[in-house]
Amino acid sequence: MSVVELGRFMDDLAEASGRAILPFFRTQVGLDDKARGGAPFDPVTEADRAAEVVLRSLIRQTFPAHGILGEEFGAERLEAECVWVLDPIDGTRAFIAGLPTWGTLIGLTRNGTAVRGLMHQPYLGERFSGDGRSARLRNAAGERTLHTRPCADLGTAILATTDPRLFTEDEEAERFRAVEGTVRMSRYGADCYAYCMLAAGQIDLVVEAGLKPYDIVALIPIVEGAGGVVTAWDGGPATEGGRIVAAGDPRLHAQALRLLNG
Amino acid sequence: MSVVELGRFMDDLAEASGRAILPFFRTQVGLDDKARGGAPFDPVTEADRAAEVVLRSLIRQTFPAHGILGEEFGAERLEAECVWVLDPIDGTRAFIAGLPTWGTLIGLTRNGTAVRGLMHQPYLGERFSGDGRSARLRNAAGERTLHTRPCADLGTAILATTDPRLFTEDEEAERFRAVEGTVRMSRYGADCYAYCMLAAGQIDLVVEAGLKPYDIVALIPIVEGAGGVVTAWDGGPATEGGRIVAAGDPRLHAQALRLLNG
Repeated sequence: MSVVELGRFMDDLAEASGRAILPFFRTQVGLDDKARGGAPFDPVTEADRAAEVVLRSLIRQTFPAHGILGEEFGAERLEAECVWVLDPIDGTRAFIAGLPTWGTLIGLTRNGTAVRGLMHQPYLGERFSGDGRSARLRNAAGERTLHTRPCADLGTAILATTDPRLFTEDEEAERFRAVEGTVRMSRYGADCYAYCMLAAGQIDLVVEAGLKPYDIVALIPIVEGAGGVVTAWDGGPATEGGRIVAAGDPRLHAQALRLLNG
Repeated sequence: MSVVELGRFMDDLAEASGRAILPFFRTQVGLDDKARGGAPFDPVTEADRAAEVVLRSLIRQTFPAHGILGEEFGAERLEAECVWVLDPIDGTRAFIAGLPTWGTLIGLTRNGTAVRGLMHQPYLGERFSGDGRSARLRNAAGERTLHTRPCADLGTAILATTDPRLFTEDEEAERFRAVEGTVRMSRYGADCYAYCMLAAGQIDLVVEAGLKPYDIVALIPIVEGAGGVVTAWDGGPATEGGRIVAAGDPRLHAQALRLLNG
């Protein structure tokens, strides 16, 4: 399969998962169904599962030798050269609250390295993609190449984190606050959009903790493709999740690493 | 002017302000322009001003006797029977970060009561409107009536607040945490979308502090029109801003008021 064909296949994955998810977005049913007895209807779990079933089915048909790691249905063939890493709905709290800042994450690793990534927001019709060398945004206005912006100093940086309560260990929270205390502005609640807006040159720094591989793998080729750096807090690869720091400017990444490591 | 004509005029205001704002959304220029000398280019301030100029001009042409209170250019004729209350970009941090959860707030008061409200998100093409008796969402999918959902108990509620750092006074922060500690889930970073998602039955409770009148007036007829309640923490009218609590279910509002007042 050529690079172009792979891009088309990933677009097919995005379209199919979007069709599976959208009927559940902003549905009125939810909590109160519990009272009717039986299993409670949970739109976000239903949407997550429906989308992952579709994604796994398309991948198995097209690439039967590839592995898959997904949020809902676990791992298969992780020993394969190529492994797809899937999070049908990254940002479940945003989804539940009806906010359009969740996204579908579709990543591809080769020998453990994240080589392709796509973030799809079907309600907004936005598709961020990257291959580690370049990154693009496609939306209703067309397609454009993404570039991170220069930002050499924490004092002028815009920081995003999904939730300050991600930092569950005292030491972790203290280190996050050390970074947050130096930046120009910090913003909560962005989930995968934080990394995409970093790639788009709108945000300079993302600091998070407690991530799973499927929360971050698809975003690595987008951030790196736009000129950014994304690693674990210890500087190691981000592919395993855990504590993650992403910066649009490598100089800012180095500054943040120093503060995050005391 | 009939109710229908007033609705059309508010749509005209939304369209004109959207056209003024969108060219500045996700522009790459910003912080680094400061280095070039002269006044720094600040896209959100430019967009805010451009939109408010357009809004004020249309209002003055159509309703020369009406008053106007806007975020950027202050107050005129506040003694008038009808006063427009405008926030061209509610959610400036979201706007700066490239996130589409900001909105244009256009409210109308009559003898001090908020009687019409519109929240417009031009990038998403979403328009929430209300008149205190009904509320609607118009988007690409069409138009639908909004209703808050029943939620009688804090323990099952979804709470939203724009930023936990809004609560600058110790006592204020303590009271907010008392509410946050009881709910099923809380979510940060929604700005005006929190109130619109409450009207849409996705969120049950919004608790904020430090709001200005133009942050809340346009949202009152939307929340009330969908069946919700929005007041100050002391139970007084929300039109003056300050500490605000909105609930989709009046029983939840009563519970929240008790906790917020110790």
